[in-house]
Amino acid sequence: MARAPKPRSSTLMARRRAMGGLKFFRRMLAGEMPQAPLTAMLNMRLLEVEEGRVVFGATPTRAVYNGMGVAHGGFAATMLDSALGCAINTMAPPGKVFTTLELKINYTRPLTEDVGPVRCEARVLHVGSRTATAEGRLIDRHGKLYAHGTTTCIVVEPTRPARGK
Amino acid sequence: MARAPKPRSSTLMARRRAMGGLKFFRRMLAGEMPQAPLTAMLNMRLLEVEEGRVVFGATPTRAVYNGMGVAHGGFAATMLDSALGCAINTMAPPGKVFTTLELKINYTRPLTEDVGPVRCEARVLHVGSRTATAEGRLIDRHGKLYAHGTTTCIVVEPTRPARGK
Amino acid sequence: MARAPKPRSSTLMARRRAMGGLKFFRRMLAGEMPQAPLTAMLNMRLLEVEEGRVVFGATPTRAVYNGMGVAHGGFAATMLDSALGCAINTMAPPGKVFTTLELKINYTRPLTEDVGPVRCEARVLHVGSRTATAEGRLIDRHGKLYAHGTTTCIVVEPTRPARGK
Amino acid sequence: MARAPKPRSSTLMARRRAMGGLKFFRRMLAGEMPQAPLTAMLNMRLLEVEEGRVVFGATPTRAVYNGMGVAHGGFAATMLDSALGCAINTMAPPGKVFTTLELKINYTRPLTEDVGPVRCEARVLHVGSRTATAEGRLIDRHGKLYAHGTTTCIVVEPTRPARGK
Repeated sequence: MARAPKPRSSTLMARRRAMGGLKFFRRMLAGEMPQAPLTAMLNMRLLEVEEGRVVFGATPTRAVYNGMGVAHGGFAATMLDSALGCAINTMAPPGKVFTTLELKINYTRPLTEDVGPVRCEARVLHVGSRTATAEGRLIDRHGKLYAHGTTTCIVVEPTRPARGK
Repeated sequence: MARAPKPRSSTLMARRRAMGGLKFFRRMLAGEMPQAPLTAMLNMRLLEVEEGRVVFGATPTRAVYNGMGVAHGGFAATMLDSALGCAINTMAPPGKVFTTLELKINYTRPLTEDVGPVRCEARVLHVGSRTATAEGRLIDRHGKLYAHGTTTCIVVEPTRPARGK
Repeated sequence: MARAPKPRSSTLMARRRAMGGLKFFRRMLAGEMPQAPLTAMLNMRLLEVEEGRVVFGATPTRAVYNGMGVAHGGFAATMLDSALGCAINTMAPPGKVFTTLELKINYTRPLTEDVGPVRCEARVLHVGSRTATAEGRLIDRHGKLYAHGTTTCIVVEPTRPARGK
Repeated sequence: MARAPKPRSSTLMARRRAMGGLKFFRRMLAGEMPQAPLTAMLNMRLLEVEEGRVVFGATPTRAVYNGMGVAHGGFAATMLDSALGCAINTMAPPGKVFTTLELKINYTRPLTEDVGPVRCEARVLHVGSRTATAEGRLIDRHGKLYAHGTTTCIVVEPTRPARGK
């Protein structure tokens, strides 16, 4: 994906806004929409999408370590923010986009390359007219919990017109 | 740095434990210790270190964007986790290492490549015998606030002996 | 309960430590142990207890309002802290007591006296040797969500001997 | 105050909306507006008000204890929610009211009646058009830190007309 011709972010955002979140992430799952640059850089992939629930997958390597020989807290934070935000956006109809207002993460076990592939499952807790919340968990193939978190997202105001795009 | 011969994480961790946090991060500032792999990948750099306070710097680019044309929440999360954890570890004497137990981030403005270089300043709020807390802010060159957060760190138990390293 | 002869807190704490959390909260449920003073003041009651899960009940009145005509955020915070802490302590064997290290609450709907009785269900997410986490939800009789939250608890170190009590 | 004739909450809220937050809380400080019922019940008092910063005071007693012989986590949560929300509302012009969307608290030391009077100082970190954030600390007369926290508030939508009140 990182090598595919990249649509401009502004174009992508316009498409996302036009088609609604569920349809957009289903297309991403089908490989018809690029994943986000940062998640692509960290080899995170969308694995499952349904209304109000998504799963991301990744395999932690030494490249995402902190200075102490385990995955940096930013790795789980990125994976959780992706999954939580997507889960919430699957509930957003065309014209509506949610963005992260705040994020809370608990780290329950050290995550290392020995753990192998991990899954981050997120599901929506509340959807209001302006804000929404979701919870997520990062687990290994045996269901062991490495991190969990919650988020509050807020509707993006479509302030800036697309300037001819 | 990513190209320098990398000391093994276990060796680095042992050195960190032996020299205490303040000395370790001062050496990192002097370029005598490698930065963490994930922060290096995201071009984040330690800029200032003193007892109980550190500053990290970075410049957000499109490579760290999410799918909506702004920096992914994981970018600020990684920067804050780095700065908060380092600030706390500057208070750790030899033999003591703190690791992140939980992290809370508020996103106050969209962060884009147009913002230019940003700083993440963190300082310690509380240091106890087992846990410590810190707060941090991510600001641009004009002092505008993009994100802020807090963390709780906990002392790493030196369970595993270094097995001949 | 507020009128019953109160055992001294230090005695209660010693009993709690001796009998383990699950047994202690089962006795509280049976009315054989007093509820905590603050939860009693707010008319919150333990309704259900099992290993890793508890439910508290209460009915918000104007007495717990803030200045804006709805229940103060401290009301849901107190109920969640009680339920989350109890849920974690049901996993604590004799000799072990967990106390709140941090608490995170999301308010999803205004809570008023018109809502009637509410339940706060909490269950454990992770139990480690030193810390544990739990999540909880505050819902009305129709299952509508008013607040949700998570906590991290840490083991209380039995530093102070009971000095003859 | 609990004994003074209570204006109806809806009337109070209308007055608060009409006069803006800073003026309202200055009147509360002068004793011309009642404090919130829950904070009054817990003997918390507004001590200082300025634009973007407030201080609440209280003295923890056994009446606000949990079952473990220290102040319940809900006590500091209530004090922080009050202070953080007021600090943010001092920035709200007439017509605008902020309410708590989420609250995060760290408990750094056990709070007991032996501590004596405590202060909770809160100040605003960010004010946007729809949301605002603030941070606060609960300290004793020596400046020792017992708890700290942050909040995100959101503008209350003036949905319900005052219907003749």
